Amino acid sequence: MDLQGTSFIGAGRGSGGAGESRAVNPVSGEEMEPAYLAEGEESVEAVCSLAAAAFVDFRERSGVDKAGFLRAIADEVDALEEEIVSRMTRETGLPEGRCRMEKGRTCGQLRLFASLLEEGSWVDARIDHADPDRAPVAKPDCRSMWRPMGPVVVFCASNFPLAYSVAGGDTASALASGCPVIVKAHGSHPGTAEIVATAVRIAVEKCGMHEGVFSMLYGSGRTIGQSLVRHSVVRAVGFTGSRNGGRALMDAAAARPEPIPVWAEMSAINPVFVLPGALRERGDAIADGFVGSLTLGVGQFCTNPGLLITGGEGRSQFAERIASLAGEAAPAAMLHKGIAEAYQDALKAMMTKEGVETLAQVPVEDGSSQGGAVVLGADAAGFLSDQSMAEEMFGPATLMVSADDEAAMLEVAESLEGQLTATVHATEEDLEMFGKLIAVLERKAGRLVYNGFPTGVEVCHGMVHGGPSPATSDGRSTSVGPRAITRFTRLVCWQDFPDSLLPPELQEDNPLKISRIVDGKRT
Amino acid sequence: MDLQGTSFIGAGRGSGGAGESRAVNPVSGEEMEPAYLAEGEESVEAVCSLAAAAFVDFRERSGVDKAGFLRAIADEVDALEEEIVSRMTRETGLPEGRCRMEKGRTCGQLRLFASLLEEGSWVDARIDHADPDRAPVAKPDCRSMWRPMGPVVVFCASNFPLAYSVAGGDTASALASGCPVIVKAHGSHPGTAEIVATAVRIAVEKCGMHEGVFSMLYGSGRTIGQSLVRHSVVRAVGFTGSRNGGRALMDAAAARPEPIPVWAEMSAINPVFVLPGALRERGDAIADGFVGSLTLGVGQFCTNPGLLITGGEGRSQFAERIASLAGEAAPAAMLHKGIAEAYQDALKAMMTKEGVETLAQVPVEDGSSQGGAVVLGADAAGFLSDQSMAEEMFGPATLMVSADDEAAMLEVAESLEGQLTATVHATEEDLEMFGKLIAVLERKAGRLVYNGFPTGVEVCHGMVHGGPSPATSDGRSTSVGPRAITRFTRLVCWQDFPDSLLPPELQEDNPLKISRIVDGKRT
Repeated sequence: MDLQGTSFIGAGRGSGGAGESRAVNPVSGEEMEPAYLAEGEESVEAVCSLAAAAFVDFRERSGVDKAGFLRAIADEVDALEEEIVSRMTRETGLPEGRCRMEKGRTCGQLRLFASLLEEGSWVDARIDHADPDRAPVAKPDCRSMWRPMGPVVVFCASNFPLAYSVAGGDTASALASGCPVIVKAHGSHPGTAEIVATAVRIAVEKCGMHEGVFSMLYGSGRTIGQSLVRHSVVRAVGFTGSRNGGRALMDAAAARPEPIPVWAEMSAINPVFVLPGALRERGDAIADGFVGSLTLGVGQFCTNPGLLITGGEGRSQFAERIASLAGEAAPAAMLHKGIAEAYQDALKAMMTKEGVETLAQVPVEDGSSQGGAVVLGADAAGFLSDQSMAEEMFGPATLMVSADDEAAMLEVAESLEGQLTATVHATEEDLEMFGKLIAVLERKAGRLVYNGFPTGVEVCHGMVHGGPSPATSDGRSTSVGPRAITRFTRLVCWQDFPDSLLPPELQEDNPLKISRIVDGKRT
Repeated sequence: MDLQGTSFIGAGRGSGGAGESRAVNPVSGEEMEPAYLAEGEESVEAVCSLAAAAFVDFRERSGVDKAGFLRAIADEVDALEEEIVSRMTRETGLPEGRCRMEKGRTCGQLRLFASLLEEGSWVDARIDHADPDRAPVAKPDCRSMWRPMGPVVVFCASNFPLAYSVAGGDTASALASGCPVIVKAHGSHPGTAEIVATAVRIAVEKCGMHEGVFSMLYGSGRTIGQSLVRHSVVRAVGFTGSRNGGRALMDAAAARPEPIPVWAEMSAINPVFVLPGALRERGDAIADGFVGSLTLGVGQFCTNPGLLITGGEGRSQFAERIASLAGEAAPAAMLHKGIAEAYQDALKAMMTKEGVETLAQVPVEDGSSQGGAVVLGADAAGFLSDQSMAEEMFGPATLMVSADDEAAMLEVAESLEGQLTATVHATEEDLEMFGKLIAVLERKAGRLVYNGFPTGVEVCHGMVHGGPSPATSDGRSTSVGPRAITRFTRLVCWQDFPDSLLPPELQEDNPLKISRIVDGKRT
């Protein structure tokens, strides 16, 4: 594919005007062609107008129609796999296998939402029949279900160039709900974004959707990103990225005359608690699994385990094994230079704190984009006395905190901010002694992992990838799995409407054969 | 009951320190005993600590336990009905029948949530089984459901002293979800609040709940109200009241280090569209019903129809009938003097706008707390040229806007802000000509009413009492009906947990026999 370096404004292309930038190969340091032209305010206005116009049609499309569209996107992404992998490996430094896996996951997500739409029950239809004879006043007929909110802005993630970018989870769930999507491309993988956006555009045309159902802009988050979030047409935002970036969008959305929801997934240190019995019984296996989880993808997952809390006998041997395994992990290129530099800065800040010792540090070339594994240590008292020890170091680094009894462990757990995940390694006997720990962690995290590791987020109905602030802006939902669709919906009720004017999901004879709650009973 | 005039700080009572105030009988203008002592920051701290402590226990209570608690509250409110009605009629000027009806509704809501908990499926449990043999990586077992967020602050509504106050819909749904509640009492009906809070306290003790599960403070919204919303322990807010008041709480919540959801129901003009065929066929009946809805409860419902859009032949006769019926409606005391004054101010502002004519105005005594029905008129062009004509006049006033064709009516509809309801009176023939109107209104309102009137909000599964901003802060949910419970919940996932450590809702053999989604299929 000849990359053009321009934005997608509905069916048309942008002409820039707000500067340009190029992707940089993080392994070689070379700048890549073509230059990507940044758009300004006029293009924000253009994509928002198109999205508003598209919403009028798209929101009325049946589940089957929307499913066909999502499947078409997945098919077109599949068809462009080789081009995607070739560009993505060079733009991100990610190995080919990871790129193919992420492509598979992206298409899998699109098809999972397509199945959800084809089945149709996700709208949570509820029907209460009228009772004209009820005293003192007649009871009306009330029927309600989830409906799409309106145009959604999706910010691409630097660490998931496919699965949480152009046609990733946020886009798939927003489109599935019936919302047009405006994507703000990420500056570090613009070519990958262009190829995927091309796939989406082909699907838009093949399925006869309104052109405004999908647009994608290149440009600065601080300028057009903010403008998109403030635009009156936009009804919700999906974001995966840094805490500062997410907070800026949250603040902009909250300051609007009509505030809108921002689903921002921002930061987490994903604590892993290893209880004494588990440490004794299978400390070596836990250490091996932990280091695998820590170094996976050069630690650039939001579920990376950045905090390891252990107690009891055998702790030094366990720490030694972790330090030794991590110390042997080969360094690798991080996604881009900015991330590598931020990682070095975070390490430096943590290593120089009082009470923090360095147990292992894989050396990297000065000024390179590489990231190396790092294991630091502290005791519970030190950790509890300095809140900043709980800050994320985005990369393959972890802080091991020793906590010798249940009280210390509970105090560490209680001190934590909101997290995406919290993990416990335990035996049955451990849980008799540390019974309160899991209850505390449930308040702190969106997903509790037992005798496992936090990385690897399964895309399934039961998954929750979310968590109390500041792990996400809004820990009520999940950005992974079918439940993510309701992030972009609102409830609408039809009172005393004739059947012919109701959406099929709410019609009396249930033409879609979906599961509904009728007069309070699930059918 | 001997009213004490003090706050409920868990099982204890407040001692004031931040001033005092008395209820005023809006009919007689007399101040009532006792003085109510306002609390300060220390009491905010005390109730928040108690709520945090209570949450540890309350969140683990079974659905049956929580249901028993809600039923006990309803029983105690029932037992105090005579005391409630006696005080409430004097504090609010509401007629006895309305007070008894609202008491019935309040207890009905509590019992409806109790039934929901006893049945148990509301948690939306989803289970995906593990597949250890899946390649390239084993599939974990993932199970998730709604869990309570934490302590909730509920602000009492001036216009629903029972159903949206101390033990009203917000409190019932928050307690049902497993969240402790801190109530900020409304200054205009403090005695009613004290009696209901006493009922709740008796239920807390009878059911052996932690004392911190319910507290109630008297004091200023601007001081302790804001402090409660900013307190780190508080996880969500429920509010029914003015746009300015709601916005202040939304802004405070959004500015927290960890923003929390505010469910504020604020203002709406609830447009009613009468299409030409309906006007011709049954204009008189619609006029009669409309004026009944307009003047119900002296217009002090959030669903009061403040905007009436008509078109076509017979419009003048229809307008005359409405003006004449409204002009005959007897004026009555509004809830308190502040509301009556604000109503007069809003009327004055609207009546002096260019293009607004007064069709009927029921005179009231100067300086009294009375509100009289008012019907104003304007044409579509005038309405569209002055956004402020769409502002709420809280009371029995409506603006009739003439719109002669579909284009004008659609333009009026499109110009509207978010609404709680939108109503259409139509014939089948009308809908062929005005087909786009309902689609536009669906984007504007939480509830669409066909050939009916917006007042009278049925408490049922299918109800949606919410709507896009600024009708509410967050139009995704409803504050009426069982769906309201999820406003105070978040999703939590348990990965690879042994059955014994899972909540019963997620255990393999489904001990509660609830409806769940297992491996993607509803069971």
